[in-house]
Amino acid sequence: MDLMKQSLEMHQRFKGKMEIISKVPVNDARDLSLAYSPGVAAPCQEIEKNPMRVYDYTMKGNLVAVVSDGTAVLGLGDIGPEAALPVMEGKALLLKRFANVDAVPITLNTKDVDEIVRTVKAMEPTFGAINLEDIAAPRCFEIEERLKAECNIPVFHDDQHGTAIVVAAGLENALKIVGKRKREVKIVINGAGAAGIATLKLLKNFGYENIVVCDSKGILYEGRASMNPVKEEIARISNPEKLKGTLDDAIVGADIFIGVSVANILTKAHIDSMKRDPIVFALANPHPEITYENAQRWGVRIIGTGRSDYPNQVNNVLAFPGIFRGALDVLASEINEEMKMAAARAIASLVEESELREDYVIPKPLDERVVPAVAKAVANAAIESGVSKLYSNQQANVI
Amino acid sequence: MDLMKQSLEMHQRFKGKMEIISKVPVNDARDLSLAYSPGVAAPCQEIEKNPMRVYDYTMKGNLVAVVSDGTAVLGLGDIGPEAALPVMEGKALLLKRFANVDAVPITLNTKDVDEIVRTVKAMEPTFGAINLEDIAAPRCFEIEERLKAECNIPVFHDDQHGTAIVVAAGLENALKIVGKRKREVKIVINGAGAAGIATLKLLKNFGYENIVVCDSKGILYEGRASMNPVKEEIARISNPEKLKGTLDDAIVGADIFIGVSVANILTKAHIDSMKRDPIVFALANPHPEITYENAQRWGVRIIGTGRSDYPNQVNNVLAFPGIFRGALDVLASEINEEMKMAAARAIASLVEESELREDYVIPKPLDERVVPAVAKAVANAAIESGVSKLYSNQQANVI
Repeated sequence: MDLMKQSLEMHQRFKGKMEIISKVPVNDARDLSLAYSPGVAAPCQEIEKNPMRVYDYTMKGNLVAVVSDGTAVLGLGDIGPEAALPVMEGKALLLKRFANVDAVPITLNTKDVDEIVRTVKAMEPTFGAINLEDIAAPRCFEIEERLKAECNIPVFHDDQHGTAIVVAAGLENALKIVGKRKREVKIVINGAGAAGIATLKLLKNFGYENIVVCDSKGILYEGRASMNPVKEEIARISNPEKLKGTLDDAIVGADIFIGVSVANILTKAHIDSMKRDPIVFALANPHPEITYENAQRWGVRIIGTGRSDYPNQVNNVLAFPGIFRGALDVLASEINEEMKMAAARAIASLVEESELREDYVIPKPLDERVVPAVAKAVANAAIESGVSKLYSNQQANVI
Repeated sequence: MDLMKQSLEMHQRFKGKMEIISKVPVNDARDLSLAYSPGVAAPCQEIEKNPMRVYDYTMKGNLVAVVSDGTAVLGLGDIGPEAALPVMEGKALLLKRFANVDAVPITLNTKDVDEIVRTVKAMEPTFGAINLEDIAAPRCFEIEERLKAECNIPVFHDDQHGTAIVVAAGLENALKIVGKRKREVKIVINGAGAAGIATLKLLKNFGYENIVVCDSKGILYEGRASMNPVKEEIARISNPEKLKGTLDDAIVGADIFIGVSVANILTKAHIDSMKRDPIVFALANPHPEITYENAQRWGVRIIGTGRSDYPNQVNNVLAFPGIFRGALDVLASEINEEMKMAAARAIASLVEESELREDYVIPKPLDERVVPAVAKAVANAAIESGVSKLYSNQQANVI
């Protein structure tokens, strides 16, 4: 049976993938009187007196909402909130499997930015963190920004930052192999959606200076036609040589190509026009911007894809489970740049220098060391950057 | 250790009561590719083609949101959305324990009717049904009414209907003992909050004609001062003799007293002024409108309370788990009057005529026959009243 048929069959057999069970024993009337009326009044009153105790007496501290409007689901596009549910349940499953985080899918039947923001804000008391998922650009940027500003729990749009973090980790190791420095390399990011823009920003924070972003109309530069406010901002903070033209122009002399775009757009001529030892992360999935075989044949030195059947898989699952674990563990009020950078460094560090090879710059998704390492690094970064409510001096005020 | 201390300790040890786990195996890369990318695209696309299939491939069909704004929690009042969480988790626990329904607590940090309605509507794609909980009257009435009108899944405010259904069930059996008919008896409902008003409406549907409702200011009648639109409506549909005055006046000649109010307000004089074989459901909890001992001493023939340590416990858990189970099983689009009445009759019928006694007119909360019987009756009533999407002829149109 092929994978798609088998997946369908499995989803139908189990009627979805997640189940909500009791952690406490419920066998008799005494158990019920502890878990429900009248005993439940005790934790209610304690939390009323001191709101931070909600983290002691409820599931909030380990509970994440996986929120989507179903507008940018996998490669399927705007399939709507019902059809998006299997992906959101899948995300909840990964959070549980990899990081023991309880997560519940919540898909919304609105695409309105104000209404999505309002809805998520209204639910804030219940959750320890919010994972935004598969919301189309550019709305996803405004939604995340506003929620981050207005919520006192972490809000994380995985499609943006998950990819960015794993790419940054892979590049960290790839540059060691080719012996180049961050400040010297030229990077082309093809794709100005959620992942492309977040990757640009994170790489800039890591010290990469020369990054050019292309969309389907070519290089983003200030004053170009066919822009939106987000792309205007991208143009301002990227492309320091003020290049114009197409991808063909952008890629000349590049050291690194990062594709978050569409299948098979990289030609031999593109690769030939790059500097020595080209690094290509071709992340369009399931069909990358260049096939693994062509990349090898045409002289790409280090290639990463989104696929599990080739080396150097750029898989978000390396990042988000450990990030949520770490953020929840120290009651972080947000997931900030320091925490994302710490996650990327932790992922990169799991490939030791002695193991480093062209086909092993990124750890495997099922490597069991990943989540603990990322969680620890993220928790430390949260504490050091002052966003951990657990280690705050103002505990009483923070909720 | 006393109950409150032990409850606190238990809540802290487990960090809340519910956990979200995977129903499907996730052991290797193949499992992941079935449950998540790329296999998950298959159910997504099937649902996109036919939205009803969301019930086949996701947890929606068994998933209930327990929604509260924390304004009327147990006897604690307006304790806020964080402090309300232990109760909502408790409700989720009861739904799982008694009816294998997956339920997730969602407490909202808004008390605005429009915003609560909008928030719940936005989440509709995810859930098979909505349980409203512990929302203060009169806002709870408008919220439920608007959501029922605008959602295509069941919306059920348990504080209203759960109590009403169990009271109706108990009265059904109590009248058999005292040999009176619904049309002949006079009922006084003391308390015009969520439970009192719902009880009035359900009892009217059952054929009780002479019902007088009192609030803390006395009998509700048309044109009285200190009314709100909900109470105006109550006055119109109750009190056929157009009584005025206090509870003292209302209870004269009553056959049945239903208290959903405050402790210890019923005196010996009240009981003496009732007709022969008084029936009293004194549901204020934990301290009823009349103590069980006084009720017995003063000649109440049948007494029910909200307490587990006395006979005839009026406990919502007799109703809501089976109601949600039945409604979900047949994909009911709402929980209508027919379904509530069927639930009450099913609960009543579990006490067989041969077992019927003054101290046994309501089955025990832990009686394992209750949920299956209620679920079956509710599912049948949904089908017969035409609100089951599963047995609709227009399946393709209903979502």
